[in-house]
Amino acid sequence: MNGLKFDLITTDGNARRGRLNTAHGSIETPAFMPVGTAATVKGMRPESVAETGAEIILGNTYHLMLRPGAERVAALGGLHKFMNWPGPILTDSGGYQVMSLSDLRKIKEEGVRFRSHIDGSYHDLTPERSIEIQHLLDSNVTMVLDECTPYPATEKQAAESMRLSMRWAARSKEAFVKRPGYGLFGIVQGSTFPDLRHESIQALSNIGFDGYAVGGLAVGEGRDVMFSTLDFTTPAMLQDRPRYLMGVGKPEDLVGAVARGIDMFDCVLPTRSGRTGQAFTRRGEVNLRNTRHKDDHRTLDEECTCPCCTGYSRAYLHHLTKSKEILGLMLLSWHNLHYYQILMAGIRDAISNGSYADFADAFHLQYNAGDIAPL
Amino acid sequence: MNGLKFDLITTDGNARRGRLNTAHGSIETPAFMPVGTAATVKGMRPESVAETGAEIILGNTYHLMLRPGAERVAALGGLHKFMNWPGPILTDSGGYQVMSLSDLRKIKEEGVRFRSHIDGSYHDLTPERSIEIQHLLDSNVTMVLDECTPYPATEKQAAESMRLSMRWAARSKEAFVKRPGYGLFGIVQGSTFPDLRHESIQALSNIGFDGYAVGGLAVGEGRDVMFSTLDFTTPAMLQDRPRYLMGVGKPEDLVGAVARGIDMFDCVLPTRSGRTGQAFTRRGEVNLRNTRHKDDHRTLDEECTCPCCTGYSRAYLHHLTKSKEILGLMLLSWHNLHYYQILMAGIRDAISNGSYADFADAFHLQYNAGDIAPL
Repeated sequence: MNGLKFDLITTDGNARRGRLNTAHGSIETPAFMPVGTAATVKGMRPESVAETGAEIILGNTYHLMLRPGAERVAALGGLHKFMNWPGPILTDSGGYQVMSLSDLRKIKEEGVRFRSHIDGSYHDLTPERSIEIQHLLDSNVTMVLDECTPYPATEKQAAESMRLSMRWAARSKEAFVKRPGYGLFGIVQGSTFPDLRHESIQALSNIGFDGYAVGGLAVGEGRDVMFSTLDFTTPAMLQDRPRYLMGVGKPEDLVGAVARGIDMFDCVLPTRSGRTGQAFTRRGEVNLRNTRHKDDHRTLDEECTCPCCTGYSRAYLHHLTKSKEILGLMLLSWHNLHYYQILMAGIRDAISNGSYADFADAFHLQYNAGDIAPL
Repeated sequence: MNGLKFDLITTDGNARRGRLNTAHGSIETPAFMPVGTAATVKGMRPESVAETGAEIILGNTYHLMLRPGAERVAALGGLHKFMNWPGPILTDSGGYQVMSLSDLRKIKEEGVRFRSHIDGSYHDLTPERSIEIQHLLDSNVTMVLDECTPYPATEKQAAESMRLSMRWAARSKEAFVKRPGYGLFGIVQGSTFPDLRHESIQALSNIGFDGYAVGGLAVGEGRDVMFSTLDFTTPAMLQDRPRYLMGVGKPEDLVGAVARGIDMFDCVLPTRSGRTGQAFTRRGEVNLRNTRHKDDHRTLDEECTCPCCTGYSRAYLHHLTKSKEILGLMLLSWHNLHYYQILMAGIRDAISNGSYADFADAFHLQYNAGDIAPL
């Protein structure tokens, strides 16, 4: 079939257990997608990313269009081959990074003009060009170009921004080339306003997409507002299509968003935190730069089976982090990605068993109880 | 037996094929030792270092005494356990880095006082303390503290420096605690002066060591002077003990020094070059930052079996290097270490087969013929 087949396997409350099938393999959902911004998950070999259990990664259109360039990637066989990741790939539309990274961007009805943060060169990104770029990259899950509405926004600002995104969504759909195992996701906008979110969902459903993302969250509104926005957004979304919460988040965000019916996530946190000595564990966040670890022979998490936790002491990780040694970020990025995937596997099992509420309670209890006592 | 057993298996001209046996395993020689300065071979997991074929690595006493500290490493079970490298480890004495990295060093008969390049704190390094630190680290091959004579030096300067090093060598031997599978190496000094090198060799032989290093080379004298110095130095060294050329070098240096009777090498080049986009291949040095690679779908070396050459195009490596992505240095460091180990394996095979001269000729022919033609 053209597009992406999504199997909704079971539900537990609003939490959903599913499977998304792509030309490059299937993805068990709820799924967490590591971010491979510039055709690499930072500090990780792709084999190692797969070893953590990740089944799909995200690539950033903004970065890849600027360097090495979408046409070049296509000539080299597509992004999968280029970066040696044979599994599914989702690409964003470039819109978010244009807003957050580029200089002198200007939004018009046609699209957005911006200057590269790399060399200052001018570029135009339209819905059609974004879709073309993602096609050239050979992305399995293409995202429509949208404007990520800044937070906070007035209802008027949010409405105008959302409606522009809906017109761009229609143009994106028009430009998308259908292929079996490849699909296009729409993005729900509307900030924190229920009527606007519902209007956006209706507009996207009328166009028709393989999946639907919730955009415009994790932009400074805080966890409570994010969750309350999901509370009135996801129930209005199609049941039989995957739902993707973009740019989220911390472990607690994932657990809470799954309870609110989200199937897919992406976030730079596991790798970015790994680069600054920050680890995510069952017991919460652990800062390896803290001197309390300097003589600690214990591993980061004695139950974790990742290479970081099976081979090294906290004292060694502290040493690497303090010394700014590359191996420190390599091991902590690996551990964090591993932890995220273990968390998602636990989430999936709990939904399958109909015990998601208990799982979430146990997760919070342990996650907030704090790290092991100092030596 | 106490000390290190060295088996001289066969010779081919002056080239030697041997085996050094330590408490943590044996090392086939001629051997190249990757440098793990601060308890990590930069950008490499220790399992990956072992996968390249490396059997022994080098740790730097200067760095480790300052951070995390020798007593701390000892309390954590020694350097092998600390850094998750179960194989043999050689440590230098710290003398060279005191000269090249620290501030305000002052050499006296007793030892050297210096200020840490990390935090400006004062430290004293004596022959006795250097040996103690290396013992605390649990180093298999301990090096005597010496003064690496600067180049160029007058004969008077070189003589005074060498004789100080010989007195320190005697004190180092006195301080060394003998254990089975652990050994102490003396270091021949004397700059480029045959009489001084011979005097140094005699002094060290009188003290008696498990192996003998040639120091004071690869410090700016150039390949010709290094080789001519080896030409009059190694023939005077004991035949039945391993010979270690410190801080060397490029592939051509290794091939030439083996022909002059050297058994062991260490150098930061494979990893340091990897961090700057420079690769060593059968065809010589290749700079991946060069734009000629930007559309090149070919691998770095089509005969190489390392993960870098089996998974990625030159175009991708160029992209990673230009984008300063961590994976670029990870892959190129791995490739370079792999290439060095493949080179050493070829060297060992050739000596075993009695064809070392032919091997060296073929190596030079290919290495200097240049990289593959641009696309």
